[in-house]
Amino acid sequence: MKTIDVCLSPDLMHLYDVRSRVVVVVDILRATSCMVTALEHGIRSIRPLADLEECRAMRSQGYLTAGERNGEKVEGFDFGNSPFEYMNEKLVGERIAFTTTNGTQAIAKSHGAKEIIIGAFLNLSAVTEYLKKGNDSVLVVCAAWKGKVNLEDTLFAGALVENLKDDIEPDCDAPLAAQRLYNLAKNDMVDFLKDSSHVKRLNRLNIHKDIAFCVTPDQYSIVPKLISGELILT
Amino acid sequence: MKTIDVCLSPDLMHLYDVRSRVVVVVDILRATSCMVTALEHGIRSIRPLADLEECRAMRSQGYLTAGERNGEKVEGFDFGNSPFEYMNEKLVGERIAFTTTNGTQAIAKSHGAKEIIIGAFLNLSAVTEYLKKGNDSVLVVCAAWKGKVNLEDTLFAGALVENLKDDIEPDCDAPLAAQRLYNLAKNDMVDFLKDSSHVKRLNRLNIHKDIAFCVTPDQYSIVPKLISGELILT
Repeated sequence: MKTIDVCLSPDLMHLYDVRSRVVVVVDILRATSCMVTALEHGIRSIRPLADLEECRAMRSQGYLTAGERNGEKVEGFDFGNSPFEYMNEKLVGERIAFTTTNGTQAIAKSHGAKEIIIGAFLNLSAVTEYLKKGNDSVLVVCAAWKGKVNLEDTLFAGALVENLKDDIEPDCDAPLAAQRLYNLAKNDMVDFLKDSSHVKRLNRLNIHKDIAFCVTPDQYSIVPKLISGELILT
Repeated sequence: MKTIDVCLSPDLMHLYDVRSRVVVVVDILRATSCMVTALEHGIRSIRPLADLEECRAMRSQGYLTAGERNGEKVEGFDFGNSPFEYMNEKLVGERIAFTTTNGTQAIAKSHGAKEIIIGAFLNLSAVTEYLKKGNDSVLVVCAAWKGKVNLEDTLFAGALVENLKDDIEPDCDAPLAAQRLYNLAKNDMVDFLKDSSHVKRLNRLNIHKDIAFCVTPDQYSIVPKLISGELILT
């Protein structure tokens, strides 16, 4: 039977052999929520980059630049890290180079996986169905916050474990812990997250609307995949 | 205000500055449960050692040897890793050198902390009171299983966060996650843990009695401390 495991922090990636696994990278607040939103709204591709200057340099190759550091838009970049910025007709067909504090780092640490896809509450059911149909075991990689475990990514991992419970077996304790937290939180995710450190951080930045949107399930039915270093829809 | 944080795996220790913190090391199944039991029953001191051969070599200095690898007693050692082995009058006044798969590794990784104490459900209230009275912030270090987060140590961390909630503020999301899991589990810990990977592992080794004992709160009122490399009662 296929199995599902959860890596609660990119700093624990050395514990997992991803060569035969589909990795689902998740950074609910807000990198992977932005990525899903952008691709749904017609952006041609997203190049996730861990390094800020490497991202900036992609301009010379015709990319728009996007991302944040410590929750705030990078000086001189075209876009920040709010999903609402990517609901923009002018972006249709464009390529974006994207760097964030945690999400793009988690993607970088997932290299070597059999496949890398992007998960968010916004495309939860699409990712669930994709994993159900596939033949491979799964590792959910939570972007966390600078290595420290966070609640929102853990809840998404738990949502996948819960949704896949009849088809894919949990591998270890992290998926069980995530699943139980999700079941506790699912009826009011915004309320459950109100004490979380990242929500407090974002509240200071005045982006309540982003938070509510990013925990809304199933707005989109796409599954972005990393192919040759670019996130695309296949 | 003092704060409490939770390091869910020794492999995340690099994220925490422990120089000004009291570290509570926890390995419920079964290292720290054994340590508390042994010291309660009159053992003079315990020298926790990460390395198995270093532990064995302590014999020449008059120590008894104890511990496990992968849940099983080490060949040639005097004692294994069941708390019941340490309820033995013959051990009163003896010194023990102790090595385990996870617990003694977690203690080794906590070196540099302002203070290191040993926590288990068996001495939960004693540890709670000790931390309440102290002036320092707290880091709970979960021994986990070979780096992977486990449920039982997370529940103990959550119990401390819950018991200290009026006195010590959670630092980040890991304490909140642990606290919520504990509140979900506390009325029937054995049942909550029945699917956990380590309980399954121990069930194969036929030690149900150990599990039930190790999740029983407040059997002892001692707080073992690491002083000059030895766990003692002060």
